[in-house]
Amino acid sequence: MLVNIPPVDNSIKSALLDKINHKTKPLGALGQLETTALTIGLIQQTLSPRLNAPTILVFAADHGIANAGVSAYPQAVTAQMVSNFMQGGAAINVFTKQNDLDFKLIDAGVNHTFEDNDQLINAKIALGTQNFATTQAMSLAQCNAAMAKGVEIMHTTIAQGCNVVGFGEMGICNTSSASCLLATLCGLPIEACVGRGTGVDDVAFKNKINTLSEAIAVHQLTSDDDPINVLATFGGFEIAMMVGAMLKAAEEKCVLIIDGFIVSAALLVASKIEPNILDYCIYAHCSQETAHKALLTHLGATPLLHLDMRLGEGTGAALAYPLILSSVNFLNEMASFESANVSQKS
Amino acid sequence: MLVNIPPVDNSIKSALLDKINHKTKPLGALGQLETTALTIGLIQQTLSPRLNAPTILVFAADHGIANAGVSAYPQAVTAQMVSNFMQGGAAINVFTKQNDLDFKLIDAGVNHTFEDNDQLINAKIALGTQNFATTQAMSLAQCNAAMAKGVEIMHTTIAQGCNVVGFGEMGICNTSSASCLLATLCGLPIEACVGRGTGVDDVAFKNKINTLSEAIAVHQLTSDDDPINVLATFGGFEIAMMVGAMLKAAEEKCVLIIDGFIVSAALLVASKIEPNILDYCIYAHCSQETAHKALLTHLGATPLLHLDMRLGEGTGAALAYPLILSSVNFLNEMASFESANVSQKS
Repeated sequence: MLVNIPPVDNSIKSALLDKINHKTKPLGALGQLETTALTIGLIQQTLSPRLNAPTILVFAADHGIANAGVSAYPQAVTAQMVSNFMQGGAAINVFTKQNDLDFKLIDAGVNHTFEDNDQLINAKIALGTQNFATTQAMSLAQCNAAMAKGVEIMHTTIAQGCNVVGFGEMGICNTSSASCLLATLCGLPIEACVGRGTGVDDVAFKNKINTLSEAIAVHQLTSDDDPINVLATFGGFEIAMMVGAMLKAAEEKCVLIIDGFIVSAALLVASKIEPNILDYCIYAHCSQETAHKALLTHLGATPLLHLDMRLGEGTGAALAYPLILSSVNFLNEMASFESANVSQKS
Repeated sequence: MLVNIPPVDNSIKSALLDKINHKTKPLGALGQLETTALTIGLIQQTLSPRLNAPTILVFAADHGIANAGVSAYPQAVTAQMVSNFMQGGAAINVFTKQNDLDFKLIDAGVNHTFEDNDQLINAKIALGTQNFATTQAMSLAQCNAAMAKGVEIMHTTIAQGCNVVGFGEMGICNTSSASCLLATLCGLPIEACVGRGTGVDDVAFKNKINTLSEAIAVHQLTSDDDPINVLATFGGFEIAMMVGAMLKAAEEKCVLIIDGFIVSAALLVASKIEPNILDYCIYAHCSQETAHKALLTHLGATPLLHLDMRLGEGTGAALAYPLILSSVNFLNEMASFESANVSQKS
């Protein structure tokens, strides 16, 4: 086992609820900000939590399944968008800058060789995965290497002072990986797990369903199989590396901010390895990608945002961050009925 | 007529959509941030909108209907919360501070005489309204004075550089005012318009419905009546002053951020006076107060947040602000497919 994640200790829960309920507001009036504050208080085991060096980690990689025509965009877009991230022109750059979030970009396996530079962490496992329509996407050795690299990157990030981390990804065709992971690990029909990704048309959508359906039939895996084997079969290097980073983040009692469909699929895999990881998660948003809602329901998640987004890159996590900070701030800064001399409910 | 609000000029719409659609993201992938960016671009009539000196105005007042026992909290809480606002201990203080929003607090008619101080704008019309269970809440003269004062406060705020304004309120029992305004102006049964406000129990909830039902029967007003007369009958001074401030803000082409149930009810009144005001509005959130959803539907609104909040004070507006800023920022700062050399959809 890579890591060991204990469940959060609930003995502080009643004291946290008591603090929340004595703030100058009607009981429960801050809705999901209150449940978010409770989650963070439990993770940090304190009535006065702090969010330090908030960081968005974006993992990028390419997918062999791109050869099957399951995306509206050519595979080259993964590398082009990585360059766009480095130049600061993508949505995630805009939102991390606005919300004062550190941004780390990781090449987990893009099908392009980038020149060395400060803005890209080179963690490349290979120049993209194999096509899982016919063979395993990666070997078990590659999968374990990707996960270990994720652990290492998270270790470094935590050493730099981070205790709250949002996850993001870039990889043309990675909704196909996520759909197969969801179908296999939750025992759902593939049709219930496939969406239009970056926006395939009707013909390509039908092709995507057929391709993934056949891939599922080829590999014959179920939810009883080793999740790491399922991950190696359908995953991408960015997904496997995220799984490792997520497990390490939870082991170190970070707050994990879960982004969209692909990041949630990575968490699904991680939760099959270490179920207690779910105690450490806040769900940024429900995306427009059809199956994300089903996946969130399976995870028992109540996402903060519902903005009909479907961009990936960690954009949902970056946009939700101010709300997460607000939940911590109200807990730390609001007056209580007693301290403000406000009458309570009659 | 207090003000003159033209509709937004849609001739710039296709250029705005074109700019949005050429950003490096799949078409529509930023969901509601894209529609928000479009709204703001139309209001400001530019492809490069700016949000300047964002301000939350919180109007406070007391309500004669408090004598009918329709709230879970005593009337004194209005003045106590105004003091809490001045001391910086309320939720709205925490969230405006976090999100760099100017905060202005207005005494529109609290049943308490505050000492002069910098943090409270004295715009008091009277020490609370009359009890609308038996008589009009305010005279037409008082209603017009409150609206005019709202226009004046907004005029000053705009002169200080503000072009985006969120509205908030504090007033024990003002959900009762909002419910009667909604029922009358939209021709809905009062039962569909009443919620639990700050959290009344079952017995008090039944009493609230009965009290408001009888009040509606006493005044016999319909959606055909002059909205200012309806406002004077059921409104509070904080609501009437908001109506004036909203009308002025739209006339001056500000972006209006609409908060919860009571603020939306004020907007409903304003829209009956000047329907074009709706072109200038962004809806911060859908609150837990039962009737807010019906009211938002009537206004044709798609709110940004769904956090099960029901606090008022402009807290929804303050929490939604970072998302509104993100919509402007992506429009101004993201690269286009062309500028970033990213391949488009095949």
